[in-house]
Amino acid sequence: MIGKIHKQMSHDSWLFSKMATPDYTPFVFLLLLFQSGVWGVPVCQTPQESPTCGYKSCHATKPGMLNVHLVPHTHDDVGWLKTVDQYFYGDRNDIQHAGVQYILDSVVDQLLKNPDRRFIYVETAFFYRWWKQQTDDMQNTVKQLVNEGRLEFVNGGWCMSDEATTHYSAVIDQMTMGLRFLNDTFGHCGRPRVAWHIDPFGHAREHASMFAQMGYDGFFFGRLDYQDRNRRMVAREQEMLWRASESLTPPMADLFTGILPNGYNPPEGFCWDQSCDDPPIRDDPDLEDYNVDDVVTRFLHIITHTLSLSLSLPPPLHQALVYKTNHIIMTMGSDFQYENANLWYKNLDKLIRYVNQMQSNGSEVNVLYSTPSCYLQELHRANLTWPLKGDDFFPYADSAHDFWTGYFTSRPALKRYERISNSYLQTCKQLEVLGGPISRKGPFGAGDSETLKKAMAVAQHHDAVSGTEKQHVANDYARKLANGWAHCQVLVSNTLSSLSGSSAPRVYCEHLNISVCPLTETSKKFSVNVYNPLARPVSWPVRLPVNGTAYSISDAKGKAVDSQVVPVSQATAAVRRGRGYAVNELLFQVQAPPLGYSTYSVSLLQNGPPSPPSPLPRAPTAVQNKFLRVTFDPETGLLSSLSNLETQQTVKLSQNFYWYNASDGNNSESIQMSGAYIFRPNTSTPFIISKTAKIETLQNSVVQEVRQWFSPWVSQVVRLYTDSRALELEWTVGPVPIGDDLGKEVISRLDSSINSSGVFYTDSNGREVLQRRKDYRPTWNLRQSEPIAGNYYPINSRAYIKDDKDQLTVVTDRSQGGGSIQDGSLEIMLHRRLLYDDVRGVGEPLNETSDIYPEGLVVRGRHLLSLSPPATAADTHRPLAQEVVLQPLITFTDGELHPSTRLEFSGLQAVLPPAVHLLTVSQWDQDTVLLRLEHQYQASESKEHSQPVTVNLQKLFSTLDMLGVSEMNLSANQWKDEMTRLDWKAESGEKPLPKRGGDPSVWEVSLKPMEIRTFLLRVRQR
Amino acid sequence: MIGKIHKQMSHDSWLFSKMATPDYTPFVFLLLLFQSGVWGVPVCQTPQESPTCGYKSCHATKPGMLNVHLVPHTHDDVGWLKTVDQYFYGDRNDIQHAGVQYILDSVVDQLLKNPDRRFIYVETAFFYRWWKQQTDDMQNTVKQLVNEGRLEFVNGGWCMSDEATTHYSAVIDQMTMGLRFLNDTFGHCGRPRVAWHIDPFGHAREHASMFAQMGYDGFFFGRLDYQDRNRRMVAREQEMLWRASESLTPPMADLFTGILPNGYNPPEGFCWDQSCDDPPIRDDPDLEDYNVDDVVTRFLHIITHTLSLSLSLPPPLHQALVYKTNHIIMTMGSDFQYENANLWYKNLDKLIRYVNQMQSNGSEVNVLYSTPSCYLQELHRANLTWPLKGDDFFPYADSAHDFWTGYFTSRPALKRYERISNSYLQTCKQLEVLGGPISRKGPFGAGDSETLKKAMAVAQHHDAVSGTEKQHVANDYARKLANGWAHCQVLVSNTLSSLSGSSAPRVYCEHLNISVCPLTETSKKFSVNVYNPLARPVSWPVRLPVNGTAYSISDAKGKAVDSQVVPVSQATAAVRRGRGYAVNELLFQVQAPPLGYSTYSVSLLQNGPPSPPSPLPRAPTAVQNKFLRVTFDPETGLLSSLSNLETQQTVKLSQNFYWYNASDGNNSESIQMSGAYIFRPNTSTPFIISKTAKIETLQNSVVQEVRQWFSPWVSQVVRLYTDSRALELEWTVGPVPIGDDLGKEVISRLDSSINSSGVFYTDSNGREVLQRRKDYRPTWNLRQSEPIAGNYYPINSRAYIKDDKDQLTVVTDRSQGGGSIQDGSLEIMLHRRLLYDDVRGVGEPLNETSDIYPEGLVVRGRHLLSLSPPATAADTHRPLAQEVVLQPLITFTDGELHPSTRLEFSGLQAVLPPAVHLLTVSQWDQDTVLLRLEHQYQASESKEHSQPVTVNLQKLFSTLDMLGVSEMNLSANQWKDEMTRLDWKAESGEKPLPKRGGDPSVWEVSLKPMEIRTFLLRVRQR
Repeated sequence: MIGKIHKQMSHDSWLFSKMATPDYTPFVFLLLLFQSGVWGVPVCQTPQESPTCGYKSCHATKPGMLNVHLVPHTHDDVGWLKTVDQYFYGDRNDIQHAGVQYILDSVVDQLLKNPDRRFIYVETAFFYRWWKQQTDDMQNTVKQLVNEGRLEFVNGGWCMSDEATTHYSAVIDQMTMGLRFLNDTFGHCGRPRVAWHIDPFGHAREHASMFAQMGYDGFFFGRLDYQDRNRRMVAREQEMLWRASESLTPPMADLFTGILPNGYNPPEGFCWDQSCDDPPIRDDPDLEDYNVDDVVTRFLHIITHTLSLSLSLPPPLHQALVYKTNHIIMTMGSDFQYENANLWYKNLDKLIRYVNQMQSNGSEVNVLYSTPSCYLQELHRANLTWPLKGDDFFPYADSAHDFWTGYFTSRPALKRYERISNSYLQTCKQLEVLGGPISRKGPFGAGDSETLKKAMAVAQHHDAVSGTEKQHVANDYARKLANGWAHCQVLVSNTLSSLSGSSAPRVYCEHLNISVCPLTETSKKFSVNVYNPLARPVSWPVRLPVNGTAYSISDAKGKAVDSQVVPVSQATAAVRRGRGYAVNELLFQVQAPPLGYSTYSVSLLQNGPPSPPSPLPRAPTAVQNKFLRVTFDPETGLLSSLSNLETQQTVKLSQNFYWYNASDGNNSESIQMSGAYIFRPNTSTPFIISKTAKIETLQNSVVQEVRQWFSPWVSQVVRLYTDSRALELEWTVGPVPIGDDLGKEVISRLDSSINSSGVFYTDSNGREVLQRRKDYRPTWNLRQSEPIAGNYYPINSRAYIKDDKDQLTVVTDRSQGGGSIQDGSLEIMLHRRLLYDDVRGVGEPLNETSDIYPEGLVVRGRHLLSLSPPATAADTHRPLAQEVVLQPLITFTDGELHPSTRLEFSGLQAVLPPAVHLLTVSQWDQDTVLLRLEHQYQASESKEHSQPVTVNLQKLFSTLDMLGVSEMNLSANQWKDEMTRLDWKAESGEKPLPKRGGDPSVWEVSLKPMEIRTFLLRVRQR
Repeated sequence: MIGKIHKQMSHDSWLFSKMATPDYTPFVFLLLLFQSGVWGVPVCQTPQESPTCGYKSCHATKPGMLNVHLVPHTHDDVGWLKTVDQYFYGDRNDIQHAGVQYILDSVVDQLLKNPDRRFIYVETAFFYRWWKQQTDDMQNTVKQLVNEGRLEFVNGGWCMSDEATTHYSAVIDQMTMGLRFLNDTFGHCGRPRVAWHIDPFGHAREHASMFAQMGYDGFFFGRLDYQDRNRRMVAREQEMLWRASESLTPPMADLFTGILPNGYNPPEGFCWDQSCDDPPIRDDPDLEDYNVDDVVTRFLHIITHTLSLSLSLPPPLHQALVYKTNHIIMTMGSDFQYENANLWYKNLDKLIRYVNQMQSNGSEVNVLYSTPSCYLQELHRANLTWPLKGDDFFPYADSAHDFWTGYFTSRPALKRYERISNSYLQTCKQLEVLGGPISRKGPFGAGDSETLKKAMAVAQHHDAVSGTEKQHVANDYARKLANGWAHCQVLVSNTLSSLSGSSAPRVYCEHLNISVCPLTETSKKFSVNVYNPLARPVSWPVRLPVNGTAYSISDAKGKAVDSQVVPVSQATAAVRRGRGYAVNELLFQVQAPPLGYSTYSVSLLQNGPPSPPSPLPRAPTAVQNKFLRVTFDPETGLLSSLSNLETQQTVKLSQNFYWYNASDGNNSESIQMSGAYIFRPNTSTPFIISKTAKIETLQNSVVQEVRQWFSPWVSQVVRLYTDSRALELEWTVGPVPIGDDLGKEVISRLDSSINSSGVFYTDSNGREVLQRRKDYRPTWNLRQSEPIAGNYYPINSRAYIKDDKDQLTVVTDRSQGGGSIQDGSLEIMLHRRLLYDDVRGVGEPLNETSDIYPEGLVVRGRHLLSLSPPATAADTHRPLAQEVVLQPLITFTDGELHPSTRLEFSGLQAVLPPAVHLLTVSQWDQDTVLLRLEHQYQASESKEHSQPVTVNLQKLFSTLDMLGVSEMNLSANQWKDEMTRLDWKAESGEKPLPKRGGDPSVWEVSLKPMEIRTFLLRVRQR
């Protein structure tokens, strides 16, 4: 059968939501095919009886007046002080009074009472929970409200993601999930026009770029550096055009961006939520304290104040604007407000009535219920030019000593777990597509990717992966991820069983990083399946905990593989805490094909002694492979130089561990403590943990390791695999001692001979790289008040320093904070253990312990170093970072494999070009697959790779026939060719280029640097 | 015209509410007159299409199961921590989160969502405020809910009155106002079936008597002595029949009374209000923490616990009952709850669903939405006998050292202001009737009694006159009363102008008790109008501040009146604080006719010296008039004996002032402090203020005074007017010094030779008297733990001690607490100044100051002592107390009166019999007057007066023609002959007597002892 085709998406909710149902008849498909004329191109229909949602539903404003847009809203953290489900139900109100189920109940009730009222809702993770508990009647009621624009979704992702510590792929996923739910449920009236990140603690350029590509017309946020804000107020630059990519052609990544006047709170004195104490409007003259006149007067004063905030600007109002138009927005709501929406609306109704009544007495203020999109529409109608913004909004400081740069590193274990969960989810989704229906219901039972998708989506929240939640909430995120893994494991087992033809039980070892795997520790014969989620083959070092001393290993073709057995390091043994008893590690290098797996068979050759060669208790002069050479200082045991043998370049390079003494707030001019959000060292000079390292060296045909011991709680392995272009520094930090009552923020610092001139570079959400300059911000004249914390930036996947000749790049395995405080130096914060709360709401010191580590969490991670000439550095770090982000999944089966087992498989017909990253392969519905292809190089970043590249979609998958293709916006909630965003003029006068024309063929997909293209593929399993 | 007649009241809301409209046609009246046959008897109609409210609207219960009646309710204090209007609007939520407007908004919304849901509302003061702000649509919606019994009013007075410190007349007034509003608005479905005093701190028998006479079928409360409660639980006597009068024939004052199982709160763990933190029911198995099983288990456990509370009773449930039937009630709500009713109802819906689902698994628990009346109906259907209760529920202790006996005296100034406001309101209402329409709109403008009625009604609240509110709230009650006075003053001026024929400006002097009156201080010629609200003539001593030394006074007939000028006492001069500068007081005795006035003319004879005779600086041996003789101890200056010269009886009698040191909670076994509610002295022996008094004596033809100085902050005048049967002790206490950091509770103690044998007597709400026995309670075996506070009782209007021969009665001018700790002794607490809060919620120490008395409030009051044989004591104290409660209103006009002025007037055709008190004369609507006649003697109290007495209503008023009469229940919201209360059987087996037959004539009204009869009179002004 040829089945269905994708129907018109944005205008017709019924048809679109039918897409998900399995009984959509071929007849319709044929009809639509006929109408569209072209196979695979989305069918365009004009809207039928289009509801008056979106911009059409906005209340009229008064041109001659100052229009005040009141935006009723709630900010519902998808976990913070309570877990997401505690927030949803209103459980544990002893921690924080918040119950989202009641908020939505109440808002809907109140919207029905007055058609003028408006509400925006943001977090689909909550809305989804609520929706599925509603009756049909209530669902229809809500649809009507949405169709009339009375309830409007803004942002609309599953959560409001963190911007500093999230990876773009996970952000795109969570946005897609939220927006898809809205589209499936409400059709085009459910599509948010505005992105809304009112709470995240700093704003990433990559987020703006993504939002632009997701079709948002504008973006509003609340938090930015206080100095930046003050300057923008004076300059009337609180609303701007953010050009969010240096690679993408404008206006592709242009995003109109507005700074809200009062964070996301209501103006002082006008909070009528049950959580507030502001006086209600008392308008019954028979009762005490009639206060209408007072309220109106205060409101008009607030407007003036909003407009002239901290400026000594004279009246009249219209000259006093710190915003450019005769419209201002007021966010009437805050955290978990509107649980009893009647309080808000009853008083807002009165406020509007009484303030507008003043117009008959000459008042020029007009107040109305509005939404961010209605406000945005008025800004657009003003037809002004707007200042252009090119950098990002990091770091965020709300005062001179209050830099929110600690959370870049907070909860490093959770940050790592989130990152590998993303990798695992991508694998899981790929295997769902490659396995077909059997993946979800197969020999190992019912599996799904949904559970992990949802867990990952909530983990993107700005108090989740950010590390700024309470401990029990962090535990809950981890628990949700683990549950997601369990569901995916069934799916993965089903698919691998189907692809390999073997239904042998599949074993997952999630603690390989600390050499724990019961199967490999005991088995004499087992096989290792290595699944590679990337679109090109990978070579990957595998380390397995074993108790034998010699093993024979053969690859999928039966060829013997070189392997080595080495003793488990003391550091690893120390952190296992009884969870494994392997004395050795079996090392070998595996290869896996693109989007596929390869299987290795392992057999014990020798059990017990003679033990493998012990490490030598001294530092080598150097270790090297064919790509790199590393030297050590024999006196200290520290690194002393790094050479790239291919390019013949060498830099002096030392590395050591330090800790900053976290401010306890008491002996400093302001009382800010270091905490989950804020990094504030007591002194600018970090304390060294040890000037020298005790050393063990281990060298064999697979790897060369220098094991460094700095203290009982800091160790490192400097590791060079035989065929790697990166030097691995595997650090282990913890339990951070606090017996001295000093909070500690532990860094790894590289000091090199590179002449970096106060400049270093960090990526934005794992994609484009931004230049960072010490004590400097591109958009204002910085008064630096925190020499360390004020120079910290988020590092999602990489950072580098360079000069004309040398670029030293560090690829990280999770988000971390870091800076370059001295020329040639690059420091990255690894772990934080703090004794004080930083008074930003979380109410706990960031002092992580667990059942297994009651004396403090131990964290292990890796930095991958590469040295290259700047012009070719990306050629190394781009693929390297992708290998870390999407790492192979290693699974095991015990015993001998059945001879018929298929030992190798690739889901691709061919390896994709090096510039192309297969960002998303995910089942959309029964016959549809969501595909994202990404050009993973920036413009001008690589001579070789920063070029347009073309992929033929029909020749992509080895197991799927392509029946149709529709290009979508980035978030897959709009047909690409219907994505018509509002156009905005920049002050620079630069005219955006016209939009690109269509591709020559629907199947031939061209990608320019940093471009992501999103498709729905209609497929049939071969 | 003959106009309207009262129509059927209880069954037909439309007709009854039409009563208030002026256009009800004579035709209907004639028709009804024909139908009824008898003039003045209410027309009985059968209900037309009666709505299913009341008992008919109750949900079915399951006979074989334990039925749990969930009663959603809110307890809305009519002022406490915030003022009544702050509570209504939700202002000052920083003090306490509470907004009644939102509660009613929300409850109505939620009731509409599920017809099974029920809600009860109690406080009409709030409901009235809300109702008048609603649209017609909303009003109709609410009427529908009421007609269907989904919204049910219980109690329904303007407030939930205090029971210890209120006077019955003011309670009847406030109940009448609240119930009338409900009847006018909702007809018979608005009539509460149940009285509901869940919060007052002890329960007065007179309240129960009133509730019975108001037609309530039952009464529920929450607070009683912890020992009493424990005993009742063991004995299953938590539900009983209260026989609330020793005079009225049962079942006239019988009231079924139930003690709620958990105060008025929900059981622990089941509070789902926004103010609570209990876990919501999480019934989505896809989300975390699904807890339905846990909730059901806990609920079933709570039921067992409720039933077997603190008893070691074994299961099964039905044997474990501490209540008698297979029904239990659960109050699901608390203070100001249901502001967001969704939280409660959403979870209660689920609770009912999931607990009842267990029935299919054999559970015998059936949960239902219910109301107190539905629960009561089931108790009635059980057809059991109930224990009989004869005494009251004072004092209330919630623990061994926590006797709520302090509030009997707390805020003595407010208590006095409330009491004289009641007097003033009765006068105001009388003059509204006597003056007719001109009273409300006359030469002095628009006046009304409504404002003072409402102010008095809220002042009856159990945190108002009780003195247990915050200071700013106490100020608000006083402000409201003052505003009510101002409105009444216009009305009084209009009426007196109309009755007297003189429109001379009328001056009110509200500070005569401290000798402040600008007019009399300066005028050389003025007249004094004395209005007497009693139904018999009064003789009353008048004291006016003057600066002359001699005046001539003539009465209404032109006859000269004896007068004396005496110097203002130092005590009075000390408390005036610049509010007056009179050096002398002009004393004379006035007479005023019943329900009428007499006018006295005063002319200055002599200005300036010679000054009046100064008091002699020593104690007399004795002072006496024709009725009494008082002797003093010349050594101490204290009273030494009191003699009744008519009866030739003498008792030894000394009197002095003492203070108890209020517990600060620190050095005692429990940490209870004395506070606004709780009296807890540190030691049982009070500290004497002075063993001797400095004395001045003043004797003349009008009065004999002995002025006693005990300290700079305690003084007294022992005063005997020439024609008085009572000895007046005018005490002045304050500012109570706290420089020693000791809280003080000041008492006046009488020590006599009367052999009182551990017994004394106090009145209940100003009416029937109860015997009190030291360290004893009539209904349980008391373990006394507070020898003073545990023997204190409320004294509303009088207390006495007696033996076979002598009865010493003290009539008070306000509510006070007191006790008889030693035989022959009677102590009354006058003033309290405390330094600690007593942790019962008010959150302030009772430490009263004011702008005028910044160093502490000064309070002045009077005790009137009489000595009689017990058999005739009531003949003195009954009229004496009525004179204090309804004191004459004295007003002034400056200058010479016009000769045509009518100087004397009586609204009665004749003096009423001595046993009859004219309790209420109040305009009901345009042509209708509410009348209450009261037999003011108890059965057997007076040989002379404790007899039935008859009054002819047609011969009552001098200015009104009687056109019709309808007898009502006490609260005038039901025709008397339709008042059919549920009948209950007492365990004593005593069979209630049949109800009395009708009177021989509708106009001839017979009153038995303590009986109050209530009438609506159809009148025409003559």
